[in-house]
Amino acid sequence: EGKVWKGRAAGPGGLGLPPLAAAAGDAAGAAPSAPGCCFFHLVRRFWNQIFTCVSVRLRDSARLRRSHTDRIKASGLKLQLCTNETQATRESFVRKLRALGFDISVSQVTAPAPAACHLLRERGLRPHLLVHHDLVPEFAEIDKTNPNCVVLGDAAENFTYANLNEAFRLLIGMEKPVLISLGKGRYYKETDGLKLDVGAYMKALEYACDIQAEVVGKPSKRFFESALAELGVPPEQAIMIGDDIVNDVGGAQQCGMRALQVRTGKFRPSDENHPEVKPDAYVNNLAEAVDIILQEM
Amino acid sequence: EGKVWKGRAAGPGGLGLPPLAAAAGDAAGAAPSAPGCCFFHLVRRFWNQIFTCVSVRLRDSARLRRSHTDRIKASGLKLQLCTNETQATRESFVRKLRALGFDISVSQVTAPAPAACHLLRERGLRPHLLVHHDLVPEFAEIDKTNPNCVVLGDAAENFTYANLNEAFRLLIGMEKPVLISLGKGRYYKETDGLKLDVGAYMKALEYACDIQAEVVGKPSKRFFESALAELGVPPEQAIMIGDDIVNDVGGAQQCGMRALQVRTGKFRPSDENHPEVKPDAYVNNLAEAVDIILQEM
Repeated sequence: EGKVWKGRAAGPGGLGLPPLAAAAGDAAGAAPSAPGCCFFHLVRRFWNQIFTCVSVRLRDSARLRRSHTDRIKASGLKLQLCTNETQATRESFVRKLRALGFDISVSQVTAPAPAACHLLRERGLRPHLLVHHDLVPEFAEIDKTNPNCVVLGDAAENFTYANLNEAFRLLIGMEKPVLISLGKGRYYKETDGLKLDVGAYMKALEYACDIQAEVVGKPSKRFFESALAELGVPPEQAIMIGDDIVNDVGGAQQCGMRALQVRTGKFRPSDENHPEVKPDAYVNNLAEAVDIILQEM
Repeated sequence: EGKVWKGRAAGPGGLGLPPLAAAAGDAAGAAPSAPGCCFFHLVRRFWNQIFTCVSVRLRDSARLRRSHTDRIKASGLKLQLCTNETQATRESFVRKLRALGFDISVSQVTAPAPAACHLLRERGLRPHLLVHHDLVPEFAEIDKTNPNCVVLGDAAENFTYANLNEAFRLLIGMEKPVLISLGKGRYYKETDGLKLDVGAYMKALEYACDIQAEVVGKPSKRFFESALAELGVPPEQAIMIGDDIVNDVGGAQQCGMRALQVRTGKFRPSDENHPEVKPDAYVNNLAEAVDIILQEM
């Protein structure tokens, strides 16, 4: 279980954080700050070098302010975007962010599909894909003949009755069914309303086959380890900033990182009483997180 | 947890069962008997009057042998069909069985949709229906304006991405989401292959909304109570015959009935090591169950 550090309210006076060697941006920075309601205090001796992983989904990119990532970049801190986005390849994801003006490279994005490909190769698995059309190229190099596992992503319109039955039949027909899920999110918001996320369909298949899926996106340990490997730092020198109490905060903490929850996006007041996960600190939004981190450098 | 009675192998010599006042048929009677592998022994003093509930689904009706139900009827025993069928109204279900030559009336069928209507009226609930087209008339008399709950059945082709998102949005928008599920089956077999059953979609919505559905079909206690009410007997005078270890056997036992599992249809050898449910006895098929019961009258 995570710890809660409560301390002085964040303010222009600074929080006594040690110098940082690198830092971050976030998916949920557009909501205005509610002054005076942020308590932030982190143990000084751990803060020698902070590398920040930031949760971002392309559909939220309107909320990812370029000014934040630019400030992080200007400070010399490193930034790694951690996304459970599985509606597009990492390349297309980065292309869209760059078109919006972000100075982001493909290696700065950790996403579930490349992690899944790594796992498939490692274990000689040949997937049947139930994923979004736009994600399929991510698996171009993977042998998909005579499938011996199912890879499930946020397939969106591909979540048809026929496709779900097909994935189910393949699984139930295996001696030891292997279901690999690119995340376990419950739902997300798009412009036309809330949508069931991959986790809901994962639960359906898990129940029908009486199995447990292997989750390769957030909050899996392997996912965060891969983000850290890209940054080249141990977990105690990185900090995760995200709005999802389980997938961002809980996942990063289980990997040995510390994690801030932003009180925007998916954040719900009830998160502060979550039975299993406690963030190391809360910030009202990404702007505030960046302010505090840069201020302490 | 159920008990296991193991005793003499079933055979022409009879099992010493007391006279029965009523008996049954089954959904899974077509598989040939495997001689010598049936162990059957029930405590004599309970067997004064046996009324049989039998699991049946219309899609399995080819396996429901008319000869069995005819023999039950000829013996003077009562029969109640217990179905989790939610792809058709009870009337249409009975019509189809009658067309196949079965002498069955509507009151002899216990099904989830009428049970759900009873519950909706009792609690003043106005459902949004995510059910099979052919089941909709069952809810004709129910107020469905401004829904304050979701009723989920085996919607089959109606399990579209759009319909699932719609049901989810309604639930997540409720202060206290109420999801009523017409069963919790994992999957079933149709001529064109295995299909995900209502239980899988129930799990998806449960997970997305972080709620527990109320199940009104098998294995809920209320469902079996309603079958017993139709027979007019207490649970200890009725016996359930079914192929589903959880929905048929477990559900009936939780209601105080005894239950036989037929080793046909959904039966899997691993059922005999089920961690929670133990049938009172096994029979190789419905024919054998009827043989044994009639032999003991």
